Amino acid sequence: MSKVRLALAQTNPTVGEIQGNLKVIVANIDEALKQGANLVLFGEMAITGYPIEDLATRESFLLDAEKAIKDLTQILQSPAYKDLTVVIGHPALTTANQAHGWAIAQNCATVITNGQVIGRYAKHHLPNYSVFDEYRTFVPGDELLTFEVNGLRFSTVICEDIWQNGGPVADLAKNNTDVALILNGSPFEIDKDDTRLALVNKLATKHNCAAIYLNLVGGQDDLVFDGDSIAVDSKARIIARAKQFKTDLVLIDIGAKDDLAVVGEHHLTKPNELWQIWNSLVLGLRDYVQKNGFSSVVLGLSGGIDSAVCATIAADAIGPENVFGVSMPSKYSSPGSKDDALDLAQRRGINYQVQAIENLIQPFETQLELDGLSAENLQARVRGVILMSLSNKHGMLTLTTGNKSELAVGYSTIYGDTVGGYAPIKDVEKTLVWELAKWRNGYALSRNEVVPIPEASITKPPSAELRPDQVDQDSLPPYDILDAILDAYINQRKSTKEIVALGFDEALVSKVLSLVDHAEWKRRQGAIGPKISGMAFGRDRRLPITNKYKG
Amino acid sequence: MSKVRLALAQTNPTVGEIQGNLKVIVANIDEALKQGANLVLFGEMAITGYPIEDLATRESFLLDAEKAIKDLTQILQSPAYKDLTVVIGHPALTTANQAHGWAIAQNCATVITNGQVIGRYAKHHLPNYSVFDEYRTFVPGDELLTFEVNGLRFSTVICEDIWQNGGPVADLAKNNTDVALILNGSPFEIDKDDTRLALVNKLATKHNCAAIYLNLVGGQDDLVFDGDSIAVDSKARIIARAKQFKTDLVLIDIGAKDDLAVVGEHHLTKPNELWQIWNSLVLGLRDYVQKNGFSSVVLGLSGGIDSAVCATIAADAIGPENVFGVSMPSKYSSPGSKDDALDLAQRRGINYQVQAIENLIQPFETQLELDGLSAENLQARVRGVILMSLSNKHGMLTLTTGNKSELAVGYSTIYGDTVGGYAPIKDVEKTLVWELAKWRNGYALSRNEVVPIPEASITKPPSAELRPDQVDQDSLPPYDILDAILDAYINQRKSTKEIVALGFDEALVSKVLSLVDHAEWKRRQGAIGPKISGMAFGRDRRLPITNKYKG
Repeated sequence: MSKVRLALAQTNPTVGEIQGNLKVIVANIDEALKQGANLVLFGEMAITGYPIEDLATRESFLLDAEKAIKDLTQILQSPAYKDLTVVIGHPALTTANQAHGWAIAQNCATVITNGQVIGRYAKHHLPNYSVFDEYRTFVPGDELLTFEVNGLRFSTVICEDIWQNGGPVADLAKNNTDVALILNGSPFEIDKDDTRLALVNKLATKHNCAAIYLNLVGGQDDLVFDGDSIAVDSKARIIARAKQFKTDLVLIDIGAKDDLAVVGEHHLTKPNELWQIWNSLVLGLRDYVQKNGFSSVVLGLSGGIDSAVCATIAADAIGPENVFGVSMPSKYSSPGSKDDALDLAQRRGINYQVQAIENLIQPFETQLELDGLSAENLQARVRGVILMSLSNKHGMLTLTTGNKSELAVGYSTIYGDTVGGYAPIKDVEKTLVWELAKWRNGYALSRNEVVPIPEASITKPPSAELRPDQVDQDSLPPYDILDAILDAYINQRKSTKEIVALGFDEALVSKVLSLVDHAEWKRRQGAIGPKISGMAFGRDRRLPITNKYKG
Repeated sequence: MSKVRLALAQTNPTVGEIQGNLKVIVANIDEALKQGANLVLFGEMAITGYPIEDLATRESFLLDAEKAIKDLTQILQSPAYKDLTVVIGHPALTTANQAHGWAIAQNCATVITNGQVIGRYAKHHLPNYSVFDEYRTFVPGDELLTFEVNGLRFSTVICEDIWQNGGPVADLAKNNTDVALILNGSPFEIDKDDTRLALVNKLATKHNCAAIYLNLVGGQDDLVFDGDSIAVDSKARIIARAKQFKTDLVLIDIGAKDDLAVVGEHHLTKPNELWQIWNSLVLGLRDYVQKNGFSSVVLGLSGGIDSAVCATIAADAIGPENVFGVSMPSKYSSPGSKDDALDLAQRRGINYQVQAIENLIQPFETQLELDGLSAENLQARVRGVILMSLSNKHGMLTLTTGNKSELAVGYSTIYGDTVGGYAPIKDVEKTLVWELAKWRNGYALSRNEVVPIPEASITKPPSAELRPDQVDQDSLPPYDILDAILDAYINQRKSTKEIVALGFDEALVSKVLSLVDHAEWKRRQGAIGPKISGMAFGRDRRLPITNKYKG
């Protein structure tokens, strides 16, 4: 029995760009072939990108995806690809029994050998929780697909199939599987890399087979696929781990289920958590910008920590020359804030301009007789108009710099500081924003680079500067307390009573929860941004706006 | 065998207001009892309101709902309620096997007799398409519940159970059911009343039982439950139909499955379609305003048809004295537009003020050197700032007046004319806006009331008036053509090729579809508004923003 050389092709597809994704797939196959592969594995829906949401309900889309699989099959009929097997994820039109007529597709993996389709597997467990709605658009399959290459037996399953009990995965051993090939579209979440590894190890041990976990990489709207594909043998020994947040092509020689070896140099390192979070934010922003055809971004620079972190993420993602910062001081802006904004821009070479708002605000205040809260909101909205005007004039994507703690309690002006198409730190709570800033500065120091974020932006008390001497803590509890209450309410779904039992003041807990509930309408109109937590705002957490529940 | 007097209690619950909903339920029971009822039927989730979305994942919420059922049970232990049976819809915490740990609830109907729970039914078919995500949050049940009252056998099922094949509903005849009680939370859609009646008739005939279809009424975010509860006997003869868009309590005497008679005076009339649409928009707006604690609304009055229709809906919903119209003319506004806006306000007695925008715009144009599209968008955004300033100052809900055709192609300025918490006509295409305006004027005429909408607003060519002599048709095809293409693309999910085959110009079709796809990010940040079509923007149609598919 000769060995199988398996290539893990960790690609970054763009949703809907079917022919473009196909080109990348063929290029990966060619490179794998050059390196001696006889089996190439791609991720879930590698041909269309993922998730395709209701595109799965369009017959024309499914037919175009099917055509790309046919195109690939034809390409693989060339003698150059003799004896090569490719496993590729894609959606397929189905005539299988449908509960409601909405789902007309299956989430499939097709196996092509010598330019012939030799089998097709349809995902059985359809995730329909968190950000996923697969039961809405897919019909489940229920049979394991097993095929042979050089005498070794491979079985395909898809993502959620290994997170649930039962279904085709239960037949791995019965089918004498040597290697389970798992096609995934698994978005990044803090700590999820450990969870995945544990799952893959459990699968290998339980079914006595090697397990290859192949993930997509890249940003797609509010999700960031982090790659980090894993290969373990049947004894749950880690053989290889592909790059995180980057495309990759890793080759593994398989002699038997317990005889796997990586080809070439390969380092098994696990980057620390803050590195992972930062890189997920960078990749999410970069792919949103590039896949949507932008080349530059504009954002307000207040001198505060949120805009400093967003600007630095943007500079890391698309280069500082493509980042345009706008300082928009009012009479309430401290000299320190203006200095910090300029300092930030200069450290990385971000483009910088100043647009004072006083002359723009006064006509409104006079004509509409505004003061108090309505005058505070006015300042934020005039800044929003400036950013959107510059965005319209120069074709730049506007970034909105709100963090998760602010979004949670509605500490923002809708159509003011919330304007923008993308929110880089919308799933990052304030205390984590500070941690990331410190980590990023330390990372720069460790590489002898200019420290990007001014120390003052990290250490000074946060303030919206909408009235004299205002600080956030006039209206909100200290952020460490606020974030702890928010974590209990949002992530852990605890009740008022349960949160109070954790040791927080009852009146404070009630106030915070009420703020969260009342801000639902604002969040619903907010920009998308990358999910990094187990419970991001957006499609991860779906609550009614009209909702009188207190509990 | 004595007859059963059944009360159809068509209530309007508010989501999350559990104790308030319980009070309404008890009041309905008392009234039904006064009218001699011995069985009272409520709608799906009448105790919590519907849909509860991810509130169903909060244990405290489910326990509070359960407590309300216990409270109701205790109340019904009073001798006053002797021999009374109540059937009530509510969510319940379950320990049933869950696929993924997200769903911890069931969607239930509980039967209470003499103050004792005698049975509980859990919905089997969980809709997970269109606006529904029930598979996300509920665990399905699988057993029919049948109980006797005065020798007649009643079985309960819930909403989707009768729209699908199989499941407990198949046991209706096996259980010797005389009367099927169907608890519903079925939102209004154009023509859905006919579909429901056909379904109920089919059920009655197929299973040889009478069928009572009890629906909720009221607005909940983007859904409007229209009531219109139906009673048919086992021969599919309509016995009664409760009011549409209003709460109602209808009593029916049941002697046998084919012997049903309505108690008191009852008219079986079917209102025409435009009346239904108009009233769904009015109820949706009224309930959004009232259930969210507002007492007044503010909107821009341009003199055009969209704002005229929105203002009239608002006046019908909450009274003209609570509607505040703002005319915001620029140098491009025609005298006719200003006159039409004033005329509209005066016809119904809507509050009216003028805020010219010239002095507010000029400082921006000068400071930011804006012209062309960015100057056009500026006008819309300055108007948005005015409306939001007035909203903040006076605590009024801002209405945004965009129609479905505009939203589809992105013919709007984000953070400009899109500002607002509620969009009354977001699911009404432009051609239907005109039809509704004409219908509403005719309705006023037929009742000898002042015609609310100025004729000029209906007949003049639509224009955004953002530059000299601009009309919508500079940028868009005529609305009858645009709406036909949008219907084919959005509602019928046809491809470019299929739409061209209907007889439309290929370049035009490609342009329109591209506009729709590119406006996804704007729609994602738009206000909610009432769904009236089979495919509303919002959670009915979920497409990626990052999406390169053309087909």
